[in-house]
Amino acid sequence: MSSTAGLILTCKAAVAWEAGKPLIIQDVEVAPPKTMEVRIKIKYTSLCRTDLYFWESKTPLFPRIFGHEAAGVVESLGEGVSDLEVGDHVLPVFTGECGDCRHCRSDVSNMCDLLRINSVRGVMLADGQSRFSINGEPVNHFLGTSTFSEYTVVHSGCVAKINPLAPLDKVCILSCGVSTGLGATLNVAKPERGSSVAVFGLGAVGLAVIAEMTNGGVDRSVECTGNIDNMISAFECVHDGWGVAVLVGVPSKDAVFMTKPINVLNERTLKGTFFGNYKPRTDLPSVVDMYMNKQLELEKFITHRIPFSEINKAFEYMVKGEGLRCIISMED
Amino acid sequence: MSSTAGLILTCKAAVAWEAGKPLIIQDVEVAPPKTMEVRIKIKYTSLCRTDLYFWESKTPLFPRIFGHEAAGVVESLGEGVSDLEVGDHVLPVFTGECGDCRHCRSDVSNMCDLLRINSVRGVMLADGQSRFSINGEPVNHFLGTSTFSEYTVVHSGCVAKINPLAPLDKVCILSCGVSTGLGATLNVAKPERGSSVAVFGLGAVGLAVIAEMTNGGVDRSVECTGNIDNMISAFECVHDGWGVAVLVGVPSKDAVFMTKPINVLNERTLKGTFFGNYKPRTDLPSVVDMYMNKQLELEKFITHRIPFSEINKAFEYMVKGEGLRCIISMED
Ligand SMILES: [Zn+2]
Ligand SMILES: [Zn+2]
Ligand SMILES: [Zn+2]
Ligand SMILES: [Zn+2]
Repeated sequence: MSSTAGLILTCKAAVAWEAGKPLIIQDVEVAPPKTMEVRIKIKYTSLCRTDLYFWESKTPLFPRIFGHEAAGVVESLGEGVSDLEVGDHVLPVFTGECGDCRHCRSDVSNMCDLLRINSVRGVMLADGQSRFSINGEPVNHFLGTSTFSEYTVVHSGCVAKINPLAPLDKVCILSCGVSTGLGATLNVAKPERGSSVAVFGLGAVGLAVIAEMTNGGVDRSVECTGNIDNMISAFECVHDGWGVAVLVGVPSKDAVFMTKPINVLNERTLKGTFFGNYKPRTDLPSVVDMYMNKQLELEKFITHRIPFSEINKAFEYMVKGEGLRCIISMED
Repeated sequence: MSSTAGLILTCKAAVAWEAGKPLIIQDVEVAPPKTMEVRIKIKYTSLCRTDLYFWESKTPLFPRIFGHEAAGVVESLGEGVSDLEVGDHVLPVFTGECGDCRHCRSDVSNMCDLLRINSVRGVMLADGQSRFSINGEPVNHFLGTSTFSEYTVVHSGCVAKINPLAPLDKVCILSCGVSTGLGATLNVAKPERGSSVAVFGLGAVGLAVIAEMTNGGVDRSVECTGNIDNMISAFECVHDGWGVAVLVGVPSKDAVFMTKPINVLNERTLKGTFFGNYKPRTDLPSVVDMYMNKQLELEKFITHRIPFSEINKAFEYMVKGEGLRCIISMED
């Protein structure tokens, strides 16, 4: 047990009060974790395009604490959590793994019925309440992670326990974008040695795959931008007979995927993936180990580092399209 | 060598002189096979919807000898054919396997660059000429098979040598529809034991798969009709996380496949297949053996039997939607 277990903690969080307006770093109260929840001390977090997207969106969910790419240490455990301990190094993840539903029991799906990503819920599942408050008024969660806070509460099914030797200021980016791109390639596109792979979108997700064009179409394509024209091109650019296109990027709600059926009938395959088909708790620890074993480079994705006090700079970099990942240190 | 090798043969064929008009059974001259070709004595043929489609189409390729589902015996060989012998029992196939192109060398594709289906060519590849003539005037081939004739000439890459014990009046239907439906299921949809499978279209192709609907979508779907709305439904009815939809049916040229990208992103797979992904020469012999080993039933597809002289009845049955396959015996 940590000395703070069971207590309401007061800590700094970056609170979004209004769509598109700078976050305000201020004191928030963080309630203890309830049944099957974990309270995590965030060490490093980074900004992903999904944060930016919802920060810019005029939803009724403000005030809200964004953030979903992060690494931290377990501070305390709610009732019933048996597979994590105080002090464990963890990645909170925006989607979860209950271990019990049809998806969790499937070998191929990671779209857990209970803990699947939910961007319109600002509360915790256990009681429909927020664990964050300011002067008694609740502050909304984001994707069940809300990592732009020194402490956050996350469902234990959304927490991956990782190698304690892994540098948290690097592996934090494995909790979203990089794992998505990597998994889309390794788990879904599965290019064979010598295959040609076209990548649409070379952000942090897209860079995690290689690119080369060939005669008659590529063997594999991976679409990371969410632009509907790119999605269609990604499908139509794969070779007939064996080509596989993998869609990763999330398009606007009104987008429609359109193609001539003959493109399908000529033995092309179209697949979608969510979080690279990784099951967060089962699979992320080994992705971290890939980095530890030098089978995966993360440094190339990290283009900026800033202290938490300057978190709004991370938004500016991304809005301007400068760089890929900006690591935000909670302790500087 | 057969006694007729190298000679021009005169035999009966059912000639289509005009779109949608009854075939005329009359004498045609069949030239000997050229390099890499085989002349086959057709024993049984059956009518497939693809014959009907092109018979009804106002193409400039009349007069033409239709027919592409059949079984027969090799009568003579052209130069360079080393893997077939006179007397071999064979299925002529509307698509081929050169053995040498990138598709033939691929483990997964059967869309041979050289011998892939071509519905607008009325001549043989070797010399751009027809092997059929009437009073010196050429008659067009159809899909390289033209099995509505007592003798036909086929590229050896489009000829599958089968078990000589197999009853030709049954296995003839394996040269198109039934193999397409079977392969779409076994090779492409690959349902696991206990999976639910939805089938769109219960013609001869569709009947080769099982049907059942379940909660949240089916595990696999197979679309055999070519109706574009069915194609879209077939995709959208599979379960997120693991569902696979397989498109088999060929739609009209103007059809567009449209769906919300989220249906893909939620880990559904869309695949197309051509001839059930079977490589005709490599794989058809074992499909015939499945029938011989009672792992595959063919009798349920055969609803009519007629002599060659009554071939126009087969067209009438299909136009009226009566039954599935009508076997046409060349020797009665
Ligand atoms: Zn993200
Ligand atoms: Zn689950
Ligand atoms: Zn080939
Ligand atoms: Zn056919």
